[in-house]
Amino acid sequence: ILRPVMTNNITEDIDVLVFLPQNNSYTFSHARVAPAILYAQQRLQAEGGQYSGIHFNIHFENSDCVNGALFLLLDRSCGQKPDLILGPVCEYEAAAVIRLASHWDIPVISAGALAAGFSNKNTEFSQLTRIAPSYVKMAETFTAMFEHFTWRSALLLFEDDKQERNCYFTLEGVYHLMADFNIKSYAVSMEERLDTDDILQNIHDTEVVIMCMGADRIREVMLAAHRRRLTNGSYMFFNVELFNASSYGNGSWKRGDKYDSDARQAYASLNTVTLLRTVKPEFEKFSMEMKKSVEKSGFHDCKDCGSVNMFVEGFHDAMLLYAIALHEAMKNGYSKKNGTEITSHMWNRTFEGIAGQVSMDVNGDRNGDFSLMAMTNVDAGTYEVVANYFGENGTFQLLPAFNSEHFTLRGRHKEQPEIPD
Amino acid sequence: ILRPVMTNNITEDIDVLVFLPQNNSYTFSHARVAPAILYAQQRLQAEGGQYSGIHFNIHFENSDCVNGALFLLLDRSCGQKPDLILGPVCEYEAAAVIRLASHWDIPVISAGALAAGFSNKNTEFSQLTRIAPSYVKMAETFTAMFEHFTWRSALLLFEDDKQERNCYFTLEGVYHLMADFNIKSYAVSMEERLDTDDILQNIHDTEVVIMCMGADRIREVMLAAHRRRLTNGSYMFFNVELFNASSYGNGSWKRGDKYDSDARQAYASLNTVTLLRTVKPEFEKFSMEMKKSVEKSGFHDCKDCGSVNMFVEGFHDAMLLYAIALHEAMKNGYSKKNGTEITSHMWNRTFEGIAGQVSMDVNGDRNGDFSLMAMTNVDAGTYEVVANYFGENGTFQLLPAFNSEHFTLRGRHKEQPEIPD
Repeated sequence: ILRPVMTNNITEDIDVLVFLPQNNSYTFSHARVAPAILYAQQRLQAEGGQYSGIHFNIHFENSDCVNGALFLLLDRSCGQKPDLILGPVCEYEAAAVIRLASHWDIPVISAGALAAGFSNKNTEFSQLTRIAPSYVKMAETFTAMFEHFTWRSALLLFEDDKQERNCYFTLEGVYHLMADFNIKSYAVSMEERLDTDDILQNIHDTEVVIMCMGADRIREVMLAAHRRRLTNGSYMFFNVELFNASSYGNGSWKRGDKYDSDARQAYASLNTVTLLRTVKPEFEKFSMEMKKSVEKSGFHDCKDCGSVNMFVEGFHDAMLLYAIALHEAMKNGYSKKNGTEITSHMWNRTFEGIAGQVSMDVNGDRNGDFSLMAMTNVDAGTYEVVANYFGENGTFQLLPAFNSEHFTLRGRHKEQPEIPD
Repeated sequence: ILRPVMTNNITEDIDVLVFLPQNNSYTFSHARVAPAILYAQQRLQAEGGQYSGIHFNIHFENSDCVNGALFLLLDRSCGQKPDLILGPVCEYEAAAVIRLASHWDIPVISAGALAAGFSNKNTEFSQLTRIAPSYVKMAETFTAMFEHFTWRSALLLFEDDKQERNCYFTLEGVYHLMADFNIKSYAVSMEERLDTDDILQNIHDTEVVIMCMGADRIREVMLAAHRRRLTNGSYMFFNVELFNASSYGNGSWKRGDKYDSDARQAYASLNTVTLLRTVKPEFEKFSMEMKKSVEKSGFHDCKDCGSVNMFVEGFHDAMLLYAIALHEAMKNGYSKKNGTEITSHMWNRTFEGIAGQVSMDVNGDRNGDFSLMAMTNVDAGTYEVVANYFGENGTFQLLPAFNSEHFTLRGRHKEQPEIPD
C-alpha cells in the first residue's frame, strides 16, 4: 500500500529566541551568525522537505556577555515563553540563561558555553545541547598526543581577563581532562607586562608548555624561550587557537620588526591545536551565501564578517538538529513544550551538518575534530597540518607532513639514581 | 502651631518575600529567623507608632542555598513583584536573586551575602543592603591588629567545600583587604585527610596563621603545631568563627580524649576573632521572646534554635531599617516601587537595632564590631575577650584582660645581612 510522503510531516509554529551580541568585536556577533540561522530556516522550510511544516518565528535579541540575555529572557517570558533558545555563547551569561531555561524545560542549543562546568547535565544545565566541541573535547587532542608521545608533564600558560575568561576556560578543559598527568598552571593578567623570566623559570621541570594568549604575547614568550635556547627540542610548545585563524599558521610569527627572523626560528618549536577544517561542495555554497548576506547588509565595520567560523556553522546546524529532534518527538506524540523529550532526541546521534558530519555524544555535547599544525618549512616559516584528532572514535591520525623527530623531546637529562661512593 | 503627630504617618501595604532555608542545619533557618521578623513586624505595627501605617504582608519561601530562591522569585514574579526581599543568605543563591532584584528595582536586605564581591554596588548588586557585617568588615579587625602589632605576613588556612564555600569567602575578605601585607593562602578540601605536615611546612616563613575550618580540624592543626613546638610564641594563631558560639572559647579544646591536656596548652596560642556581643535590656526581652516562639512551635529537631545569632538580629533590624527608609522616601513623594530611592535611605545612616546601634556605611554595608578572644588562664583553659574592634570609627580597644606579651612574636631570627669574611 502506498502512502503519500506528506503524512510523515508535522506542522508546528516554533518561537526561537536567539541571543547574539550586536558588538562585532565578537566572532559570534549577530552580523556574522544571523545569516546562517536564516539560511538554515530557509532550507528547512523549502517546499516539500521533511521539516517544511515547521514554521520558525525567529527573534534576535542582543547579548552583552554579562547579564543582558538573562534579563531579556526574564522580561519577555512572563507572557509566552520561547520554544527554543539559541545561544548565548559567553560562559557566564550562558550559565544564567541555561539554568533558567532548564528550570522552565526549554531546550537551549549553543555553539558556545564551552567551559567544563556545563558538562554536568544532571541538574542546572539539563536542557543544554552544545553544537560546538567544548574545551574538554579539545583537551582530548592533548591526552591523545601525551599518550602517543609518552609525555607526562605540562605547564598551562594563559592570560586571564577576569571577565569572559576565554583562555582560562580553554585551558581549564585541559586541566580537567588531564588529571592523571603532572599539570601546573600559570595565569598572567591582561593589565600587567609579561614577566617572561618568571614564566620560563616555571617551565623548568615540565616537558610541554600549552599556551592560550593573544598572538603578540605568544610571540613574546617564544622569543624569550628562543633567547634562552629552550626551543632546541628540550621542550614542546603548543598554543590553542580555535577561533582566530589569523593568529596561527603561516606568517603568525611575522611583525615586520627586527625580531622576525628569531621569531620564525622560535616558531619552529611552536605547534598549534585548532579546529579541523573540512570542505565539501555544499559548504562552499554556504560560505558564498554567508559572504553575500554580509555584503548585502553593508557591514563595513565588521572585519572578516563574511567568513564562516565554528559559531556560524554551529548555529546553522543547531536549527537542523532541533528540527530533527522536534520531528521525532512529535511523531512519538510529544508536544513542542516538552523540552526534556526534544532535548533527548538531540543527544547521542549523528547527522549531516553544513560542513560535514556532526556527532553528538550521549551527554549532548558535540564530539570534536581537531588539527595539529607545525612549521614544516623553517626557511619559509610555513605551517602544515601534520596530524588530526577525531573525537568520535578517539583516533589520532598522522599525516604525510608529520615528522616524528619534531615531536621528540631532546637533550633532557633523565633523573638518575645517585651512585653511592 | 501644633500639628497632630499622625500627619507624620504613612499608610502602605508592603509585600515582603523572605528566603530562608527550612533545613535547620543552617543557623539562619526559617525556624530560627522567622520569629524575629514577625517580632519586628509586631513592634512596627504597634498602635500609634510612627510606622504603624505600614502593613507588611510577609511571605516566607524556602531557600535551598542553590537556585531555589531564584526560581521561586521568577515563578511568582510574573504577576505582582514583591516590594522588598529579605535574604537569601548563601552567597551563590543570593547573587542570582540580588542580580535580578536589582534589575527590577526591588530592595534586598540580607544578613548574609557576606562575600567581597557584593561590595560592588555599581551594577549587578545595586539594590543590596547588607544588615550584617561582611567578611571584608571582619577583615578590618586583622588590619587593625597587624598595624598595632607590626606584623607583616600571614598564611590563610581554610577548608573549601566547593559548595557554599563559607570559609573560602570568609578568608577571601581578609585577602581582599590585606593586599599591602604579605599574604599566602592554603585550601584544604573537605574530603581529604588533613595533611598537617604539609600545612605546617607552609607556615614556615609567615608570622601569623589565620584559620577558618571546622572545630575538630582547628584542634588537629593546633595539636600538630604544638608537637612541633610552633606554639611557643614564634607564630600567632587565629581562627575566625563568627556564627558558631560553641566552636570557640572555654572548653573549645576539650574532647575528652588523651590529647585534651596538649590541646589546652596549644590553644593558649590560639586566638579567636568573632562578632562583638552586646547586651541591653531590650535585647534580653527579645531573646526571651525568640526562645518562647521556638518552643511554642515545637522544633525539637533544631538544636539551639531559640538562641539569637547575627542572622536573627540582622533580619529583625532589616524590617526596622526598611520602615525608616520607606517612611522617608514616601514623605519625599516617592512610591514604594522606587527601590533605588528607598535603598538610598537605608545607606549611610545609624539607627537603633534590637541589640544596639546599627551603623550602615555609605555603600549600604553594615559596619562591624568584633571581639578578639584569647586564653587568659592556661591552667583552666578559659578564654576572655581581650580587645574589641569598632568598625564605625576603626578603633582597636584593649581591655583589662589584654596582655601585650601574648601578642608579641618571640624567638624569631630576623634575617641578618651576611657578614663578609
